[in-house]
Amino acid sequence: MCSKVKIINNSFISLVFLLLLVSFGMFAEDGYRLWLRYDRIADENKLKEYKEDIKAIHFPGNSPVLEAAREELTKGLTGLLGFPVEFADKLTGSGTLIVGTPKSSSIVASLSLGGKLKNVGKEGYTIQNAAVKGKKCIVIAANTDVGILYGVFNFLKLLQTNKSLDNLNVSESPKIEYRLLNHWDNLDRTVERGYAGFSIWDWHKLPDYLDPRYKDYARANASIGINGTVLTNVNANALVLAPMYLGKVAALADVFRPYGIRVYLTARFSAPIEIGGLKTADPLDPTVKKWWKEKVSEIYKYIPDFGGFLVKANSEGQPGPQNYDRSHADGANMLADALAPHGGIVMWRAFVYAYDVNEDRAEQAYNEFVPLDGKFRYNVLIQAKNGPLDFQPREPFHPLFGAMKKTPVMMEFQITQEYLGCATHLVYLATLYKECLESDTYAKGKGSTVAKVIDGSLFDYPNSGFAGVSNIGTDRNWTGHHFAQGNWYAFGRLGWDHELSAEEIAEEWIRMTFSNDKEVVKTLKEIMMTSREIAVSYMTPLGLHHIMAEHHHYGPGPWVSVSGRPDWTSVYYHQADSNGIGFDRTKTGSNALGQYYPEVRKKFSDPKKCPDEYLLWFHHLPWDYKMKSGRTLWEELCRKYYMGADSVKWMVDRFSLLGGKIDSERFEQVSAFLKIQQKEAIWWRNACLLYFQTFSKKPIPAGYEKPSGTLECYKSLKFPYAPGIKPSW
Amino acid sequence: MCSKVKIINNSFISLVFLLLLVSFGMFAEDGYRLWLRYDRIADENKLKEYKEDIKAIHFPGNSPVLEAAREELTKGLTGLLGFPVEFADKLTGSGTLIVGTPKSSSIVASLSLGGKLKNVGKEGYTIQNAAVKGKKCIVIAANTDVGILYGVFNFLKLLQTNKSLDNLNVSESPKIEYRLLNHWDNLDRTVERGYAGFSIWDWHKLPDYLDPRYKDYARANASIGINGTVLTNVNANALVLAPMYLGKVAALADVFRPYGIRVYLTARFSAPIEIGGLKTADPLDPTVKKWWKEKVSEIYKYIPDFGGFLVKANSEGQPGPQNYDRSHADGANMLADALAPHGGIVMWRAFVYAYDVNEDRAEQAYNEFVPLDGKFRYNVLIQAKNGPLDFQPREPFHPLFGAMKKTPVMMEFQITQEYLGCATHLVYLATLYKECLESDTYAKGKGSTVAKVIDGSLFDYPNSGFAGVSNIGTDRNWTGHHFAQGNWYAFGRLGWDHELSAEEIAEEWIRMTFSNDKEVVKTLKEIMMTSREIAVSYMTPLGLHHIMAEHHHYGPGPWVSVSGRPDWTSVYYHQADSNGIGFDRTKTGSNALGQYYPEVRKKFSDPKKCPDEYLLWFHHLPWDYKMKSGRTLWEELCRKYYMGADSVKWMVDRFSLLGGKIDSERFEQVSAFLKIQQKEAIWWRNACLLYFQTFSKKPIPAGYEKPSGTLECYKSLKFPYAPGIKPSW
Repeated sequence: MCSKVKIINNSFISLVFLLLLVSFGMFAEDGYRLWLRYDRIADENKLKEYKEDIKAIHFPGNSPVLEAAREELTKGLTGLLGFPVEFADKLTGSGTLIVGTPKSSSIVASLSLGGKLKNVGKEGYTIQNAAVKGKKCIVIAANTDVGILYGVFNFLKLLQTNKSLDNLNVSESPKIEYRLLNHWDNLDRTVERGYAGFSIWDWHKLPDYLDPRYKDYARANASIGINGTVLTNVNANALVLAPMYLGKVAALADVFRPYGIRVYLTARFSAPIEIGGLKTADPLDPTVKKWWKEKVSEIYKYIPDFGGFLVKANSEGQPGPQNYDRSHADGANMLADALAPHGGIVMWRAFVYAYDVNEDRAEQAYNEFVPLDGKFRYNVLIQAKNGPLDFQPREPFHPLFGAMKKTPVMMEFQITQEYLGCATHLVYLATLYKECLESDTYAKGKGSTVAKVIDGSLFDYPNSGFAGVSNIGTDRNWTGHHFAQGNWYAFGRLGWDHELSAEEIAEEWIRMTFSNDKEVVKTLKEIMMTSREIAVSYMTPLGLHHIMAEHHHYGPGPWVSVSGRPDWTSVYYHQADSNGIGFDRTKTGSNALGQYYPEVRKKFSDPKKCPDEYLLWFHHLPWDYKMKSGRTLWEELCRKYYMGADSVKWMVDRFSLLGGKIDSERFEQVSAFLKIQQKEAIWWRNACLLYFQTFSKKPIPAGYEKPSGTLECYKSLKFPYAPGIKPSW
Repeated sequence: MCSKVKIINNSFISLVFLLLLVSFGMFAEDGYRLWLRYDRIADENKLKEYKEDIKAIHFPGNSPVLEAAREELTKGLTGLLGFPVEFADKLTGSGTLIVGTPKSSSIVASLSLGGKLKNVGKEGYTIQNAAVKGKKCIVIAANTDVGILYGVFNFLKLLQTNKSLDNLNVSESPKIEYRLLNHWDNLDRTVERGYAGFSIWDWHKLPDYLDPRYKDYARANASIGINGTVLTNVNANALVLAPMYLGKVAALADVFRPYGIRVYLTARFSAPIEIGGLKTADPLDPTVKKWWKEKVSEIYKYIPDFGGFLVKANSEGQPGPQNYDRSHADGANMLADALAPHGGIVMWRAFVYAYDVNEDRAEQAYNEFVPLDGKFRYNVLIQAKNGPLDFQPREPFHPLFGAMKKTPVMMEFQITQEYLGCATHLVYLATLYKECLESDTYAKGKGSTVAKVIDGSLFDYPNSGFAGVSNIGTDRNWTGHHFAQGNWYAFGRLGWDHELSAEEIAEEWIRMTFSNDKEVVKTLKEIMMTSREIAVSYMTPLGLHHIMAEHHHYGPGPWVSVSGRPDWTSVYYHQADSNGIGFDRTKTGSNALGQYYPEVRKKFSDPKKCPDEYLLWFHHLPWDYKMKSGRTLWEELCRKYYMGADSVKWMVDRFSLLGGKIDSERFEQVSAFLKIQQKEAIWWRNACLLYFQTFSKKPIPAGYEKPSGTLECYKSLKFPYAPGIKPSW
């Protein structure tokens, strides 16, 4: 960016070489299979061991879910072991894999699994070595068919990650009830903030044509415990609630059902007007209530296990109850009442901010919702983003977590990388997710983590939920960047068990997706585990936030000062001036910090104690403020930006060592993307430092190479067709 | 359509069965490889024969194009024969395949191929059996490297289609010089009239990331002789001419170059204003001329072999020279002058119609361009659609063919099925293309076919061109419908040799793409060869035209009577009233027929002689008009519509017999699409007949099942997100 125009002359030789490599593997690894690759086990000793352990499968029972589990087991074992394992009606000898519920399998019923099964609930499973009639067997048991499905996926993972099948004692059940992907997919197949092509929902050909991809989507989600999907954008289109579309939604629900996945839709609050022909959408109006009740009944005729609605109301121009001087509770409860008889839920988003910008935007959701605590129906969940602003590379946790004691607050993470490099940056998000989940709200004293709030244990919520804004699109590898698959994976795994570490998750994903080779695992894990901190460093270090380009959010834009509203600009957030930089959210400023519990306030309120990571989120400080490191704030800022960009170079170099150790197609694409990331990290660094320098009036410290472009050039860059937005916006 | 709401309950059993079939072929046939599949020859006798014939390859010479040819030969033979054939520096014995130009290969130079090579020109090739130093060999020879590339593809096709390699005497060269795909792809990756996903040009990641798909695109095109591609929509965006995009275009050009493919761009006429900062785009203004000259020079710095511009001007709201009271010749010549020093051409579209609708739209291009004949620079071609209107299921040939004696008129066919069922109808277009190409213009007496006009032979044009509006998108199988691949293929083959029959082309495509199995070839050829006539029958029989729904053109819309302009409506074209139906284009009507040569006029002017296929194109006739068949016009219309819809049922049934004979993934998708086509054919039939019945006041003849829906219901159907349009339109 902003270097001299360079005529691109691809080295023809290297192109031919690469493509020769690919050509002969007629079916090169294009990433479509995600982490469910099931290639033959490379370690011959392990393979031999597994063949001894799994000589036959006893898996009785008929139901769509059991069929799906049996099909997956067949597919997985056939691939991993290199041949199809025989199914046996009866227990034939040692090395039989026994799969079933006490209902589907008399053998399972005869085993003393009562205690274990009781503990795993309605979605969990247990995997045990067992002596059955004197024969050494492995048992996958659950209370329900879907528990079996999850157990099968986990069992296959044991093989995929080369784990021993001796001394198995696995008992798993999800800590959170509703584990959902949120698709910001429009009916025209564009995807808001989507960087992996377009929507995989081919609405036009539904319901008559079911793309095989729908089933593979369900398989992938089920394999990581996701049990619901919101098909449509939170900036909703009422049309999806019309019969023509409900038929299409039902066809998808039919494909997903055997995988334990329920479909949800976004409900446009003004739908009664737009498709119902009513004159109002006032949630207290009886005709409106009636319309929604009938609409919901109609939906359940199409989709008997419909999950419910996700609603964005009175936010960023979306209609909502406040249009009629009603509260969010009035709006949510009306929908909840319509859904309750059918077992559906309402996920009401907390991402709201008023049209008049009188207060710090970071404070608004709290101010809006805390007074309503206790006023929501039992089947309403408040869905809050991880931080109080908007999916920034780093934010403190949202103050709503811990503040709503009577209303379930559920998590909304972003999997798609709106603010984290869009299509091409390698940023492993599990560390970001974990940072939030492990944050202590102190709502009920020390240890009141965000995780405990959202899993419902802290306040004994009736429901718990975990949502992630999908990064899935039509790109052959689903997520655009091969490593973005890992973020989908990590999201699902954390929804199932938020106590897993980011590193454990990375390791299992690498082993399933790339290789069990030690060096590959080690290198990729190192890259992944540091990647998010690196991105923070070259984008928004030291607590900076919301300084990206406007609309498409691609690249830096700290200079953005005019937009639709002040809190859509960058200057609103970084507050840089000749005195210093940062947003004062302490008592001397907006006092957004006051929304947290005292222990949290204490941690952040004193700049001397506030961790560097959050410093400029909470404080406006002078350019020569002395940091803990002894450097001035300006020097530290420069250091972070340079370190961030240099670290991407390190990623490029580290990854390049894996040539030949992973398949060439993925290796080449990731390498190309890393080089883009390197270029863009330098772009971020140069643009931000040159801009902030106009206030600090200080030189970039000696030893750092000077930015090659000019601020004016960086400011002039325009990307009207950057992905993830409609250019007409 | 318009049948009762039906809750879709997919049979789970059949789903599982299908998916089990697919699952075990880990790499099922998804259609990505198009007709270049190169699977091992199934006929063991043939395979044995080929192995005898090809024991070694002698293929010297270095150039990017020769490398590409060698790579393709290696890939192809390795796949087809099942092992890699050895390359030999020298002639080693019988069964050597010798490939080269007289320059690249001394052996080729030593053979007496002079006469043969002279005849095949700069893109042709010859394939011969030859005794070289007493050894039985096969020789692929050409004058140029690209000739070798084409020869290699053809040689591989001989194997793919199981032809004998004895008595080879192939000498091929293209009859038309410029053979181009036109992509109506926008910079935001939407594709106007695209039904196969979105644009394969991932502009955002270019030039840094080169999707392997770009090379496979080039391979596929080269294999059928396409030598140019217009990357961008004729409804052009000036931005693609800005440096940021030129760098991206150059990266694509670098990938395509080794495959003999040059890139072209669409030039927005107002670009000097929009990206040049000028106040005018007047083609006679010196600053405008200078701007274009400099812009063109800049483009050639990025892309030394840039092909030139395709221009849509003063048509459907696009800017053009007439905005400044200049003629199309003024506009085209200005661009031609800028391109001439670099060897570039201008393709100026004849698809123009004035804002004021005073004359029959079918007459306007002729009236606009014939007076300008002889006024265009030598490097301008006038690009006319096959018919005078707009890619209808059937139109008579465009009267411009034969009318421009001094200015090359080139062909624009549509490969994407804007008016022929969009995403899901199986319609083989080679029969449509051939119908036009073989039409006799009588411009220089009998035998003055459209083909002879556009190949330049009739009027000895300095240039000749053949363009097809692409049907390619991001769908895994490139074209959405597997059979739409055949239209891309047929377009390319006819551009190379318009004398090929539609049937020959279908047969070679089927053999390469599906199977050499006799029954498969026979059945698919039958389906393909009748498919276009079937589509005409259920959409627009007897010369009807332009009666589709507006904007997206998906489905029937004979009732469209209000639109942006009268000639965007359906009633303008079908003119149905209580007296009859049809557009009188004879002397008593618009006299558009007067634009043709007398022999053609004679053929069409008398309804008694006019072929039924064109009857209502040229004539307005009473409902009880007695047809050649003895039936009344109304009865004949009904008969055609019913026959069309019934024939789709026949296609469904015929195709279903191939289960097990072609791979399940493609079989299932095509089957699903055929069922959609069947449903939609009935929709077309019912909607059109119910509508026309309101004028004819006659019953649908006995023996035909009554339409199940009502006209009001059909009229009420809305598809705001049908593919191929921007919903904001």
